[in-house]
Amino acid sequence: MRAVIIVSGGFAELGPEGEKRQKLVEEIAKKYGIRVIGPNCIGILDNFSGVDTFFLPEDRLRRPPQGHISIVSQSGALLSMWIDWMAMKGMGIAKAISYGNKMDLDDIDFIDYLAEDPYTKIILLYIEGLKPSRGQAFIEVVRRAISKGKAVIALKGGRTERGFQAAASHTAALASGYEVYQAVFKQAGIIEVDTMEEMFDIAKALLMMPPAKGKRVLILTNAGGEGVLATDYASRLGLEIPVLPQFIREELRSKLPPHVVVSNPIDLTGDTDDERYKIVLETILPKNIVDIVIVIAPPHPPAISGKIVDYVENAYKEFGIPIIAVVTGGYIAEEYIKKFEDRGIPAYQTPERAAKVAAALARFGEILNKFSGKK
Amino acid sequence: MRAVIIVSGGFAELGPEGEKRQKLVEEIAKKYGIRVIGPNCIGILDNFSGVDTFFLPEDRLRRPPQGHISIVSQSGALLSMWIDWMAMKGMGIAKAISYGNKMDLDDIDFIDYLAEDPYTKIILLYIEGLKPSRGQAFIEVVRRAISKGKAVIALKGGRTERGFQAAASHTAALASGYEVYQAVFKQAGIIEVDTMEEMFDIAKALLMMPPAKGKRVLILTNAGGEGVLATDYASRLGLEIPVLPQFIREELRSKLPPHVVVSNPIDLTGDTDDERYKIVLETILPKNIVDIVIVIAPPHPPAISGKIVDYVENAYKEFGIPIIAVVTGGYIAEEYIKKFEDRGIPAYQTPERAAKVAAALARFGEILNKFSGKK
Repeated sequence: MRAVIIVSGGFAELGPEGEKRQKLVEEIAKKYGIRVIGPNCIGILDNFSGVDTFFLPEDRLRRPPQGHISIVSQSGALLSMWIDWMAMKGMGIAKAISYGNKMDLDDIDFIDYLAEDPYTKIILLYIEGLKPSRGQAFIEVVRRAISKGKAVIALKGGRTERGFQAAASHTAALASGYEVYQAVFKQAGIIEVDTMEEMFDIAKALLMMPPAKGKRVLILTNAGGEGVLATDYASRLGLEIPVLPQFIREELRSKLPPHVVVSNPIDLTGDTDDERYKIVLETILPKNIVDIVIVIAPPHPPAISGKIVDYVENAYKEFGIPIIAVVTGGYIAEEYIKKFEDRGIPAYQTPERAAKVAAALARFGEILNKFSGKK
Repeated sequence: MRAVIIVSGGFAELGPEGEKRQKLVEEIAKKYGIRVIGPNCIGILDNFSGVDTFFLPEDRLRRPPQGHISIVSQSGALLSMWIDWMAMKGMGIAKAISYGNKMDLDDIDFIDYLAEDPYTKIILLYIEGLKPSRGQAFIEVVRRAISKGKAVIALKGGRTERGFQAAASHTAALASGYEVYQAVFKQAGIIEVDTMEEMFDIAKALLMMPPAKGKRVLILTNAGGEGVLATDYASRLGLEIPVLPQFIREELRSKLPPHVVVSNPIDLTGDTDDERYKIVLETILPKNIVDIVIVIAPPHPPAISGKIVDYVENAYKEFGIPIIAVVTGGYIAEEYIKKFEDRGIPAYQTPERAAKVAAALARFGEILNKFSGKK
C-alpha cells in the first residue's frame, strides 16, 4: 500500500476554499489506494527506525533519546515543542505522530498501531476533536492498548466555549462539547490531565513505577508545612491519607525520637537524619496498609547525608509499593532529584506535583483492574 | 525593647507538656517586656541589613540576591527550601521571617512591619492558621500593605480535613476551617494561590508587570494547539478572550498573509517571522480593547530570528499593557525565556502557567481598585 505524508497547510483548516482542495486530494488518494497522514501536519518521528519527517534541523529542534513514550498530536507545533523539551530532559521517545487535518488516518489508526508497537509503553494524546462517529472506535483502540498494559494519557484542547471556538478555527470542525469527551475518556480508561506539566510528570512516573493497588497514601516528611500541602492536595484529588493503626504508631514511637510526629503525614522534623526515613519505610511498608508513598526529602537538614536515596530505592525494591520523592529547593535539591531518578524513583520539586502523580498511579491501577483482564 | 528569637522546638507543637513549657517562657517574656519570635522557627533573614539567623550554612542553603519579595512563613522548613530555590533562580528577596509557634509576635505583626518596609513590594505568606480572634486585625494590616501598592499572596496549608489535622499536629491548635480563611483572604484583598509554583510564578510577574486594568486577554501564538490550551485555561480562570471587532480584523487581514487566523487567539502559524508579532501588537494595543497580552512565542519556526523579544519589549514600553510570554521547549526555549526576562517580560514554559499569572494580574488590578483608594 502506498502511503503519503502531506505536510503543507492550506486545506480544510482555512475554510470552504481549502476544504474543496482537501476533498480533491482525498478523492485522488482513495482512487489510487494511497493512505495519507495530514495535511497540515509535521508528519512522524520514529526514533527506532530513524524515519524523521520533522522539517526543523537539530539546532532548532532537538530529538530525544530512544525510549518508551509515544505521542499522537493533532497539533504539529505542540508536538515539536514537546519533543524539544523531552530532548532537554533526556526523556526517551519511541514514536511521535502529528496528524493535522486527518483527512484519512486519524487518532484511532495511530493508537491502534501503537497498541501493538513493542517500544511503546505510554501513549500521550493531544486531541482537539475526534472525527464524527469515531467515539466507539476510539474507546475500543484505547482499551486494546490498555489490555497490553499501556497507559494512555490525554490532554484535551477546546474544553471551554472559547477554547472550542479557537480549536475549530485552526483544525476541521469539531463534533462535540467537552462533556462528551470526558465521558468517552472515562469509558475508554484514559488518564486525562489538566496541564502539559502534569502530562509529563505522570508519564515519567508511569515509566518508573508500577500502578498503585489502591488509594492509601503514606506521606513522610522532614518539613511539616510541606507535609500539610501534600496532604491537602492528595485529599482533594480523592486519595486517602489513612490514620496509622495504633500498633504501628507504638512501634514507630519506640524506634524514633519523642518529638517526631507519628501520624500521617509522619513529620521526622528538621533534625532528622537519613536513618529515620529507613526506619519508617521498613516498619510500615511490609504491613500492607498503604498503596503509595510520598517521601518529602529536602536535603537541607544538617544531618541528612544522602543515604536517604539508597534507603528509598531499597524500600521500593524490597516492598514493590510505588514511591514518589519530593525535593524542593535550589541546586542541592536538583542534585537530589537527579540522584533519585538515577535510581528509578520519580522525583519532583513540589508536593502538589507529586500528589497529582500519586493520583495518576492510583487511577492507572484502577484502569488496569477494570480493563486489562488481569485481576 | 529587648527582642529574642527562639529557634528551639519542644514547645506547644509537642502537646500538653510542651505547652506548659511555652506558657512559662511566655510569662517570663511578658514580665520583662521581651518580644519573641518563635519558638520552633528558624528566625529571620534580612537581606539588606545582613541579619541572618538561619542556622544552615551556604552550601546547604544558598541565600538569594537582594530584591523586593518578602516572605512570612509559619513553616521554617518550607521557608528554607523556598529561599534556596529563589537563590538558584536569582529571584531577589528583601526579608524572610519564620515565626513557628508565634507565642508572641505573629503574622499580623510581620505584615504590619512589611507594609512599611521600603524594600518590600510583594509579601508571600505561608499560613496554616491565625491566632484566635486575629481575623479582623489580619484584614486590616493586609489592606494597609495594599494601600501602599504592595501585593499580598497567600498559600494556605490545611485546606482539607486531613490537611487541617496535619497542620494541627505540628503547630498550635487551629481556630477555623478553610471556608473562613477563604472569606478572610477575599475581604483582605489577598491573592490566594493553589500551589507553590503558582505563588512564585505570580510573584515574578507582579514584580515585572503592572496590574491589569481589566480581564480582557489577547492571545497571540504561532502554534494553534498552544493557543487553544491558553484560551481554555484563561477562560476557566474567569478571564475574557474577546472576539476582535470587525474593523480590527479587517486591518489585520490587510497586513498579514491570508492563512493567518485573525481571531482571538490570533494564530500566526508555523511559517511566521518575528514581524507578524510586531504588526499584531502595534495594531491592537493602541486601541484599548485588551487589558493583558499572552504572547506564545516558541522559537522553533525557521523564520523566527529573535527580534520578537525586542518587539514585545517595545510594545510593552510603548503601550503599558502587561504582557506575559510563553516559550515551550528545550534549551532554545530556556534561552528565550531568559532573553524575555532580561528585558522585563515575565516568561513561562507552559500556557497554563501563563494563564494563571494573567488571572493574578487581573485580580491584583481589581484589588488595587477596591482597596488602594487610587481610583
